Amino acid sequence: MTVTSELDDSFHVFDTTLRDGAQREGINLTVADKLAIARHLDDYGVGFIEGGWPGANPRDTEFFARARKEIDFRHAQLVAFGATRRAGAKAAEDPQVRALLESGAEVITLVAKSHDRHVELALRTTLDENLAMVRDTVSHLRAEGRRVFVDCEHFFDGYRANPEYAKAVVRTAAEAGADVVVLCDTNGGMLPAQIQAVVATVLADTGARLGIHTQDDTGCAVANTLAAVDAGATHVQCTANGYGERVGNANLFPVVAALELKYGMRVLPEGRLRETTRISHAIAEVVNLTPSTHQPYVGVSAFAHKAGLHASAIKVDPDLYQHTDPALVGNTMRMLVSDMAGRASIELKGKELGIDLGGDRELVGRVVERVKERELRGYTYEAADASFELLLRAEVEGAPLSYFSVESWRAIVEDRPDGSHANEATVKLWAKGERIVATAEGNGPVNALDRALRVALEKIYPQLAKLELVDYKVRILEGVHGTQSTTRVLISTGDGTGEWSTVGVAENVIAASWQALEDAYTYGLLRAGVTPAP
Amino acid sequence: MTVTSELDDSFHVFDTTLRDGAQREGINLTVADKLAIARHLDDYGVGFIEGGWPGANPRDTEFFARARKEIDFRHAQLVAFGATRRAGAKAAEDPQVRALLESGAEVITLVAKSHDRHVELALRTTLDENLAMVRDTVSHLRAEGRRVFVDCEHFFDGYRANPEYAKAVVRTAAEAGADVVVLCDTNGGMLPAQIQAVVATVLADTGARLGIHTQDDTGCAVANTLAAVDAGATHVQCTANGYGERVGNANLFPVVAALELKYGMRVLPEGRLRETTRISHAIAEVVNLTPSTHQPYVGVSAFAHKAGLHASAIKVDPDLYQHTDPALVGNTMRMLVSDMAGRASIELKGKELGIDLGGDRELVGRVVERVKERELRGYTYEAADASFELLLRAEVEGAPLSYFSVESWRAIVEDRPDGSHANEATVKLWAKGERIVATAEGNGPVNALDRALRVALEKIYPQLAKLELVDYKVRILEGVHGTQSTTRVLISTGDGTGEWSTVGVAENVIAASWQALEDAYTYGLLRAGVTPAP
Repeated sequence: MTVTSELDDSFHVFDTTLRDGAQREGINLTVADKLAIARHLDDYGVGFIEGGWPGANPRDTEFFARARKEIDFRHAQLVAFGATRRAGAKAAEDPQVRALLESGAEVITLVAKSHDRHVELALRTTLDENLAMVRDTVSHLRAEGRRVFVDCEHFFDGYRANPEYAKAVVRTAAEAGADVVVLCDTNGGMLPAQIQAVVATVLADTGARLGIHTQDDTGCAVANTLAAVDAGATHVQCTANGYGERVGNANLFPVVAALELKYGMRVLPEGRLRETTRISHAIAEVVNLTPSTHQPYVGVSAFAHKAGLHASAIKVDPDLYQHTDPALVGNTMRMLVSDMAGRASIELKGKELGIDLGGDRELVGRVVERVKERELRGYTYEAADASFELLLRAEVEGAPLSYFSVESWRAIVEDRPDGSHANEATVKLWAKGERIVATAEGNGPVNALDRALRVALEKIYPQLAKLELVDYKVRILEGVHGTQSTTRVLISTGDGTGEWSTVGVAENVIAASWQALEDAYTYGLLRAGVTPAP
Repeated sequence: MTVTSELDDSFHVFDTTLRDGAQREGINLTVADKLAIARHLDDYGVGFIEGGWPGANPRDTEFFARARKEIDFRHAQLVAFGATRRAGAKAAEDPQVRALLESGAEVITLVAKSHDRHVELALRTTLDENLAMVRDTVSHLRAEGRRVFVDCEHFFDGYRANPEYAKAVVRTAAEAGADVVVLCDTNGGMLPAQIQAVVATVLADTGARLGIHTQDDTGCAVANTLAAVDAGATHVQCTANGYGERVGNANLFPVVAALELKYGMRVLPEGRLRETTRISHAIAEVVNLTPSTHQPYVGVSAFAHKAGLHASAIKVDPDLYQHTDPALVGNTMRMLVSDMAGRASIELKGKELGIDLGGDRELVGRVVERVKERELRGYTYEAADASFELLLRAEVEGAPLSYFSVESWRAIVEDRPDGSHANEATVKLWAKGERIVATAEGNGPVNALDRALRVALEKIYPQLAKLELVDYKVRILEGVHGTQSTTRVLISTGDGTGEWSTVGVAENVIAASWQALEDAYTYGLLRAGVTPAP
């Protein structure tokens, strides 16, 4: 594990996605997921990656063993998380403490109680014994050559209840050799002004190097983290995309972006901030959660402009309407096509797609009308650029782009008495004057339709071999009617050099998928430079 | 429009969901939607509801006309939003200003430029003329008997560029008769410490009553709003669920909750804070966006506990782990069933469902194993209480609850040359010793299966007539493989007295839906008190 980051130790970006972030409802990480996320975080350039609690969880033990062998960290140090020794035991003899050493991690974060009631009710020991547990465990790990950080759990509530005891825990940890003592707002109830006041006082009273760990229960986790930095904390604990228990943790990305862009600090290696959007989305993909479209800095909507009013002024000067250049965090400005947008937005969007609409007011009017009418029926072009481009080209050229003409299709799903399923689809279409009937099986009805369409068309358009469906999303509109609702399907398709999104809307998921597939194939052929020939 | 709120005018909760919130990507409100949201906001108890820009948008003009007739506001005053008069024109002769008066709104918010570059580049007029535009328009509306608030657009950037001019706009508005001058962080780039310093200075230098309007581009909108209140602002502009352009606006609910629960202020009428969760979800339903599960205070995960460590300590004292009592905002604590949860969580969950597992360690172990195994395959019991209860009962009773036994089923979707679709399903099953074959059509394959199952079972279980599918959600797991992914379906079913959720996982959406339907019908019969008879 060699660390070659050019940043010094004066400020720590400490990520705990793999430990605290994994507590989020709906996240369930395999060891392979954890390794993939660790690679992304190291690539992003955080200084520390807390990997889990070895010993408490077999999956985490395995993660540390494999991460040491399989990952060559370029920036980050791997951190093992664990608790102080049990009451009445010796640190050297505590199996949980031993597991931390056996993980091979060079840095260890110990969680310690700092709230007197938690010591008495949850730990069921005395306040003095708790201090001894902190002292002994830190000393033992230091003697074994490890760097130690101490997380003071429920620190801010503890400080309110018994400030002297809370500070005694900080002093004990620092005196025993902990490099950083992290004040944790474990239940997330704090507000920035309170955090700032407490951190400033604890810093002045103890002289310990302080870190901050916040949760987002008041919606202030990012601001709370920054307030602690304002007060002198030099170590911030965050999670990618703010994943974490309950509402979540402080979100790594807006914290890092604020420190770099608003505070002018250097907290990532050179050039890494521009990877923010990519890393955020990549981690969302690994944990299998849809990236939040409205996440600060990295959301697909974060620099999207909808209002007609703004759209016309943005033509004058984008800097007037954006707090930062989206390219600095790897994002882009987008003009949204929607029925609220006026002509200025449609023109700008056309320009984005390389279609000049500037001169033709009547044409722009027709496009606006067509978008309105389709969006009323449930289509959304905000998330389906390829379908929008096809619509735009149809208006510009007077007729839809057509590579094939579909006569009919059919999909059958059959559940057999043995519990297995048969999925079969038949497509009948015309292409280049030829009538083609193709049937295919798949692992579901949409997959079977996709395959049948491909079988039918590949003879005539061999370019389609490269196409791959990369994402498939289903949204039920008007959820109160259950299965009788309208269904919207968004499909992302790739050809190895790029990706595009298409939309379909119908009364059922199969028919909606079919529409999105038709657009996806049509757009794929357009991208490949194939001349239309229905 | 009679206002009977018991709160005085000293602090304003001003909601702009219907105007600024509607700028969010993906939101598209009809007049009926706007009326429904206005009713919810009034019910919640906000002081002001900004309804839109009458005159600029026919839908907003219609909204004001209908709101006056159709809504009897109990707490809120309706506010019309508009701009200062055009450069070089008279306020009394500006049709846009006239439309504000014609809306009948007793309160009018005027947006004014306060950033010198915006005056010159976007408004294309002089700095002096902009001040005259503010003065004239405010005076005119005051002379017509309206209360006026002035939104200073891009105030904080303007203050940084030219503090004297920005303050001159505030003074001009206040001297002309504006009751509140609202400092807007229009592009959302500010941080709390900056907001607090600027608001304090402007308050000291101008003496005007100040309001705050923030956007969430740095992830600090709630904290920025509170920082302004700390500095003396007495009017906060927010939107329900933080809806708004780009990342969104300051979220009404955590702002109100912080003011009431953390600051100890009374900003809503008595007893309304407890409606927070309900109102948040109701508005999400109207705008047709899934409520954010991780929203502070109101998210379904906001007080959900997953970690085994916490779960056992929560048995001791829930207050140790929650920053506030969820009941105060109408939410509830939940224990999550997941493979991270240990025995304590399963026991607590059993208790929630009325099944005592306390004594049987071996049984609890079996349930933990079964949940782990199923969640590994993609099931989620966090969101499917009814399926979890069926699983739990199967372990307790040694066999699954069975009212019917399915032999096979089949669904066919056919696209006809005329573009219409035929959806047909056939179900073959045994119930009470009888073999039943039923076929039904539907508007989609799942709907056809649902109907066929109902036709097959209703003869034997007439109780099923009351069942209705109320929500249907599809999630594709492992999104990188497109249509070859695993599919998870969550179905909510109601019987008029309650709702329950079930889950199905399979390689395709139809098969997954079928599983969730089977559980939904089984649970419905259990709820109806029917004795199992396969």
